[in-house]
Amino acid sequence: MMMTHLLAELYGCKPSIEDEGVLAAAARAAAEEVGATVIGNYEVRYVPHGLTVAVFLAESHIVLTTWPEYRLTLLDVLLCNPDMDHSRVAARIKREICPDGRMVVHDVPRKIAEAP
Amino acid sequence: MMMTHLLAELYGCKPSIEDEGVLAAAARAAAEEVGATVIGNYEVRYVPHGLTVAVFLAESHIVLTTWPEYRLTLLDVLLCNPDMDHSRVAARIKREICPDGRMVVHDVPRKIAEAP
Repeated sequence: MMMTHLLAELYGCKPSIEDEGVLAAAARAAAEEVGATVIGNYEVRYVPHGLTVAVFLAESHIVLTTWPEYRLTLLDVLLCNPDMDHSRVAARIKREICPDGRMVVHDVPRKIAEAP
Repeated sequence: MMMTHLLAELYGCKPSIEDEGVLAAAARAAAEEVGATVIGNYEVRYVPHGLTVAVFLAESHIVLTTWPEYRLTLLDVLLCNPDMDHSRVAARIKREICPDGRMVVHDVPRKIAEAP
């Protein structure tokens, strides 16, 4: 089975990417939009600035790492259910935190199988 | 600034990838080997099998997602310190949980900057 791991850079994000609540809400809304189940989250605040917000799903995870000084968010979406559309997750998160910005997407194929 | 986000598939892992303690210890040992600082971790156990273990660092994160039924581990390493060698992290984790297996690495370049 092939899965796609989506990494994306979101440039020109809203200043609210300094708020872990805003990031977690965006990730949860995106997960719900594709029918994924949120089972937990974890937040890290860096010194002097920057956050990591990880939202854990029954289908794996969404991680946002922000560089507020650049208005930049690094996005990481892994959905271990091929019926769920990771690009919809990314688009929803962009709409929430980076509506007027630019997104650069890396779709990384990952082969789920016995040792080849 | 360019950073590298390393994703890797490790095939042919030890059966102990069903043990979250083994995974967390491998990630911590690998982080310490490159001088990164562990600040927390989070673990998810899936039904019927599989684990996600995320180790959060002052320099970002290491995430391991396992498919024990395939003896497969998906690895994700982001180090926001260009002096730290993410490939050493991957090699150490492979040695701990997948010494006789095979690793497929994806190095994804990520541009840390203002909106381009």
